[in-house]
Amino acid sequence: MTRLVEHADAPPEVRAVFDEIMAARGVADVNNFWKALALHPPTLRRTWDSLREVMAPGALDPLTKEMLYLAASAASGCAYCVASHTAAARAKGMTEAMHGELLAVIAMAAQTNRLAEALRVPVDPGFGE
Amino acid sequence: MTRLVEHADAPPEVRAVFDEIMAARGVADVNNFWKALALHPPTLRRTWDSLREVMAPGALDPLTKEMLYLAASAASGCAYCVASHTAAARAKGMTEAMHGELLAVIAMAAQTNRLAEALRVPVDPGFGE
Amino acid sequence: MTRLVEHADAPPEVRAVFDEIMAARGVADVNNFWKALALHPPTLRRTWDSLREVMAPGALDPLTKEMLYLAASAASGCAYCVASHTAAARAKGMTEAMHGELLAVIAMAAQTNRLAEALRVPVDPGFGE
Amino acid sequence: MTRLVEHADAPPEVRAVFDEIMAARGVADVNNFWKALALHPPTLRRTWDSLREVMAPGALDPLTKEMLYLAASAASGCAYCVASHTAAARAKGMTEAMHGELLAVIAMAAQTNRLAEALRVPVDPGFGE
Amino acid sequence: MTRLVEHADAPPEVRAVFDEIMAARGVADVNNFWKALALHPPTLRRTWDSLREVMAPGALDPLTKEMLYLAASAASGCAYCVASHTAAARAKGMTEAMHGELLAVIAMAAQTNRLAEALRVPVDPGFGE
Amino acid sequence: MTRLVEHADAPPEVRAVFDEIMAARGVADVNNFWKALALHPPTLRRTWDSLREVMAPGALDPLTKEMLYLAASAASGCAYCVASHTAAARAKGMTEAMHGELLAVIAMAAQTNRLAEALRVPVDPGFGE
Repeated sequence: MTRLVEHADAPPEVRAVFDEIMAARGVADVNNFWKALALHPPTLRRTWDSLREVMAPGALDPLTKEMLYLAASAASGCAYCVASHTAAARAKGMTEAMHGELLAVIAMAAQTNRLAEALRVPVDPGFGE
Repeated sequence: MTRLVEHADAPPEVRAVFDEIMAARGVADVNNFWKALALHPPTLRRTWDSLREVMAPGALDPLTKEMLYLAASAASGCAYCVASHTAAARAKGMTEAMHGELLAVIAMAAQTNRLAEALRVPVDPGFGE
Repeated sequence: MTRLVEHADAPPEVRAVFDEIMAARGVADVNNFWKALALHPPTLRRTWDSLREVMAPGALDPLTKEMLYLAASAASGCAYCVASHTAAARAKGMTEAMHGELLAVIAMAAQTNRLAEALRVPVDPGFGE
Repeated sequence: MTRLVEHADAPPEVRAVFDEIMAARGVADVNNFWKALALHPPTLRRTWDSLREVMAPGALDPLTKEMLYLAASAASGCAYCVASHTAAARAKGMTEAMHGELLAVIAMAAQTNRLAEALRVPVDPGFGE
Repeated sequence: MTRLVEHADAPPEVRAVFDEIMAARGVADVNNFWKALALHPPTLRRTWDSLREVMAPGALDPLTKEMLYLAASAASGCAYCVASHTAAARAKGMTEAMHGELLAVIAMAAQTNRLAEALRVPVDPGFGE
Repeated sequence: MTRLVEHADAPPEVRAVFDEIMAARGVADVNNFWKALALHPPTLRRTWDSLREVMAPGALDPLTKEMLYLAASAASGCAYCVASHTAAARAKGMTEAMHGELLAVIAMAAQTNRLAEALRVPVDPGFGE
């Protein structure tokens, strides 16, 4: 098990990131991911800054972004990430029916991804730029 | 290169699936993926039936489903699938700005997926059921 | 493109491995994989020695081993390996029907692999040791 | 941990699938995979129908199919799937010696898959269609 | 093929990043990766800023970082990344012998990674925190 | 859980490998990986012989090799391997700062690997052979 750095024991540059996360999310503590990432303060800082920027509302709404995050995490097989982003997507409004359909799409993609690779299908000219 | 079965040369059970795809999509020919999958007619039939069912409008709209498909395909690194589902998502309304944000989410997920695994972060109790 | 070392230009320790491969397979030249691996003669030697030992007939027959190799390569998405082991499996007797069923199994596994991970299914006690 | 739906608590369309699985396999309960998949009844139904069709005896016998499933699952790194399909393959006759050789083939494939990709080996013309 | 944005056609915020890359590397043009990433200027900016920070000399020297980048890219099977980071590592001093040993380590890791997963080996208590 | 073979219960060919590992590493017992691999003595023997050869000092020093092993294992998402090679790298001199930078490189690679694939970036001619 990796070492988890708690707020009380964190050096100032780590505590500053933790404080920003708690404020942005309105929570009293950060998830284990951040406590583990405190091992390397520059990576903690960069990851949080990137995440906040990427997940902000834009051309895509926050729920859609969160479901895309979950789909990518499930496709790459990260158990922790599946757990955390399933929870986050639910908190942002993903219903059980939406979750079920998301899972169905992931399973469908996994299936056709492998078939396309196992058959070495040439890309259609029509897919364009 | 795998063998691509053209409509004119296809056995009846393959032609039937090709006809359904062309009718459902309003196109004059099917993509290379289906022509390659014709190698095994039962898999062609099952894959098309599943795809049609999974991608039908439901709790999630078709564009969201297509972007989830693209996210999962990109995360698993299937070049053909990325090409075909990028084209499909654009056809369903994905703008360049939406595409850019989708890519940013995928890149972010890849990064935190690997960090969570490399740190073996324990799942938080709060992620619930 | 990586550099491919031809037999005529190979140093003695590479040529020795090439000769063993050609003799074992009854072919007049080795595949590109071996020509590329000649970049590092100790890895070339170790890989060939391991491959010959692993693929020899044993509790599993050579065709089954070759199909398992193809299934693993397809699941990991290696295009070169899919091409070479599809060719090898056909040479050892894999019919088009067998190939089709193998693809169906791979697609099925990809689908349930992702679902099991996305749902974080706990291992059943009954799966035993 | 994902929620597992027990037979007694399942809605009719889930119970119907569970009953088919128990009848087909001659068991008194279904595995956790199916209980978790009950989250989305249409995906549960489609997955079971596909699995039954794909794993039926055909050009390949059931044990070979099960070992291919295990090889693909191991190559994609799904812990639950490795556990369940190792158990299933043993139940269908995979001996310890066959299991050992299967593992050796998977390890060999992993090794050459990565080398072929890291060297970007061009596909040999002779691999044909 | 994705669209590649050339310097002459780039909007100011893209051109600014291109200029920084060319200055930092002492080159007359940027690689295709950056030209493709120009599709989404915020991701282009964030990726370059992160890369510059991560790859700067620190506790690890630039060549070691570049080889770690290559190892990670090879393990995840990204052909473009393997090509670009092999070239970058050579430019930073990776000899052919070092490249060969790096490939041998990657192949070894691939092999034991799969075996550890296929055998579901429990983590040793001694691996500590 | 897979079966772990202890030294006292091991057949002679397994015990011989265990003895070599303990002698080479100056430890009183082997890790779980080897105890699990004892399921198939020829694979145990081949894996140990290969590992000893690959990880020996050469053009790359043992710590660099160990960190490359860790990077490849993290990129392929093997939890056991990440745990064991993190411990091994620390034992060979990887400091917390080096570990942090290694994680940063892995995260960076994951991010650009996915972007390069999702954008299907064509390989630059300048990357050469």
